[in-house]
Amino acid sequence: MHVCVTCLAGEDRETVPRAGRRLHDALADAQRRQDGLSSFRIIEAECLSNCNRGCSVALSGPGRWSYVYGDLSQASVEDLLAGASRYAATEDGLVPWRERPTIFRKGVIARIPPAPKPV
Amino acid sequence: MHVCVTCLAGEDRETVPRAGRRLHDALADAQRRQDGLSSFRIIEAECLSNCNRGCSVALSGPGRWSYVYGDLSQASVEDLLAGASRYAATEDGLVPWRERPTIFRKGVIARIPPAPKPV
Repeated sequence: MHVCVTCLAGEDRETVPRAGRRLHDALADAQRRQDGLSSFRIIEAECLSNCNRGCSVALSGPGRWSYVYGDLSQASVEDLLAGASRYAATEDGLVPWRERPTIFRKGVIARIPPAPKPV
Repeated sequence: MHVCVTCLAGEDRETVPRAGRRLHDALADAQRRQDGLSSFRIIEAECLSNCNRGCSVALSGPGRWSYVYGDLSQASVEDLLAGASRYAATEDGLVPWRERPTIFRKGVIARIPPAPKPV
């Protein structure tokens, strides 16, 4: 899971730390507090080009559908971890609609099919 | 390049062929008319979850940044082919801003870093 750490989410440009950085750190902290090994990594990213609906995260992996989600905040941490775990448990990245957290149903910005092999 | 062929782009649901299908077919036709071998494939996709700003395409490839673009139509065909060629010519999917067609600068919906390797 990539988390945009440069996101302002509408806040003043001088706010430190930025909203995206706060979301990233809250996710990383919550993942560390969970028992057992995690099935996915949380990775910092610079701008996912979804600035109008940040904070943003992206779920991706080789051979999988990728998803970008927006309208996120620190209130989304538990749902993000649960949703990303379900994503990681699939073969192709497609989680059944009913099993997706509400923040994923309402906050989907776009999705991309598995990357084609080069010509 | 994935093209959403189910996109309505605000048209009536009964319109046949759909706006996304028309864009896909126009792209495929234009690519066939070009001289030489193309550096990328045009692939049909069902819903890129960008329904509010369709038509939509996605550029992706192994080890590359992926991009979703919206606000597209058959008027975008030549710029799409040129922009996708520049994307295909990069190592990582990052085309310098000045070399991106205007439809890419204004119509970017989101981007996703290269897929991380599984945990």
